[in-house]
Amino acid sequence: MKLARFGAPGAEKPALVDADGMLRDLSSAIADINPAALSDASLAKIAAIDAKALPVVSGPVRLGPPVAQTGKIVCIGLNYTDHAKETGLSIPEEPVVFLKGCRPSGPNDDIRLPKDAQKADWEVELAIVIGKRALYVGKEDALSYVAGYCTFNDFTERSYQMERGGQWTKGKSFPGFAPIGPWLVTRDEVADPGSLHLWLDVNGKRHQDGNTKNFIFDVPTVISYLSQFIELEPGDIIATGTPAGVGLGHKPEPVFVKAGDVIELGIEGLGAQRQQILPWSS
Amino acid sequence: MKLARFGAPGAEKPALVDADGMLRDLSSAIADINPAALSDASLAKIAAIDAKALPVVSGPVRLGPPVAQTGKIVCIGLNYTDHAKETGLSIPEEPVVFLKGCRPSGPNDDIRLPKDAQKADWEVELAIVIGKRALYVGKEDALSYVAGYCTFNDFTERSYQMERGGQWTKGKSFPGFAPIGPWLVTRDEVADPGSLHLWLDVNGKRHQDGNTKNFIFDVPTVISYLSQFIELEPGDIIATGTPAGVGLGHKPEPVFVKAGDVIELGIEGLGAQRQQILPWSS
Repeated sequence: MKLARFGAPGAEKPALVDADGMLRDLSSAIADINPAALSDASLAKIAAIDAKALPVVSGPVRLGPPVAQTGKIVCIGLNYTDHAKETGLSIPEEPVVFLKGCRPSGPNDDIRLPKDAQKADWEVELAIVIGKRALYVGKEDALSYVAGYCTFNDFTERSYQMERGGQWTKGKSFPGFAPIGPWLVTRDEVADPGSLHLWLDVNGKRHQDGNTKNFIFDVPTVISYLSQFIELEPGDIIATGTPAGVGLGHKPEPVFVKAGDVIELGIEGLGAQRQQILPWSS
Repeated sequence: MKLARFGAPGAEKPALVDADGMLRDLSSAIADINPAALSDASLAKIAAIDAKALPVVSGPVRLGPPVAQTGKIVCIGLNYTDHAKETGLSIPEEPVVFLKGCRPSGPNDDIRLPKDAQKADWEVELAIVIGKRALYVGKEDALSYVAGYCTFNDFTERSYQMERGGQWTKGKSFPGFAPIGPWLVTRDEVADPGSLHLWLDVNGKRHQDGNTKNFIFDVPTVISYLSQFIELEPGDIIATGTPAGVGLGHKPEPVFVKAGDVIELGIEGLGAQRQQILPWSS
């Protein structure tokens, strides 16, 4: 099942994508795709709805983040060998963990650069959406805590992340730096989250072309590991790291995005995003 | 004005502390001390209520975190010269910023240690509660974005923070690692947040005995600085860093807390907390 949210920011309505790819308005059936809607029982109820009986959402609509009321965005750093190498950092022995301090944004929302952005960079990532509270979860059970998966862009200002002292948080948290979607694809439709092609283009040129089979720490390992340190709650998002091909790792020189650029990215079976980069404006 | 929340976890009701120190039930006047309640206009309305006409909350009650629906807890690391020295880390040129991945807990709630805790440590801190959305805020306006101040314990498992690779997040995010309260003291009652005594005892022995006048980065600087990287929203908490005297910095050897220990901490004018340390139990 593919779940989505459409409408103006902050006023999105729930929807599903039917077998023909049509967006259908779910708001007569559920209030929103919120944490309570992500339990196995709730998802089963939604799956039992006759999609063809729901109103088609017609015309161009904005898609919002496919999940409302996300409590936190937890990220894994350096989770692909090729990406760790391109950054010049060593392969981690344990997952590197950080949090993003912004809210999720829609998959095709514009990204406004910070006023003094110098090194704005992209990171296509497989995102996990948590469906059930998880603390001290074993690898063998870990996938049962997943509601579904999404395409995610862990957008980053490298100068803030790397050159302003201390932790990575500063470079990961500006408003708009967390596009997610277009859909939440429920876990029953993702046979193997460890075998998904993912890609990212800037202005039509391919920069990232990877596969989650190259994870250093796979999805069950990531969930089990995180749950030793952080209680994962329904609606939380885990961004699982990016493969090689970010701007920082570009050879012979790094390349970064500037106002006017267009980023397109996607993951096999999870849909594609498109972001126009804009200069700062208040 | 001192605002508090009382009752079982997740079912707290709003209250205020009257001039005689009595807890008065505010639930007939406002739904909760949530982000919307923290605007200047809303706080003015609450201040206009005749406190003596509100029901007294009698008997022993649990206090919850004084603010509901906090979106994020942003922390400043190494913000006192003496603390930076005791950790052996250099004085930062810019504020060190990280996020806690747990929810706020009540000021006197027990703290359950993680299963494999080895270096559980305390950090008394002045917490700022944001009242108004803040992005690109100047120092001169920064205090107008503050709803009020609270006592905060930035509880930390140092082995996770320092010895498990990467960022500090892992050591800062376990459930229960963010006691806040007892009250939110509105900013009009805190003449100078840069001149407050703060202290912390473990089992009755004083370990931290500091003053916010020793901040490296003061409250207006912290708010203005953060707002360049992160959009601060009503209900967000900023923990402004801890003075010297944490367990990690104890001489000749570090000391850490174990099950059975009791931590007491407080800040001049903002009230005191008491936490019993318990072993892990699910």
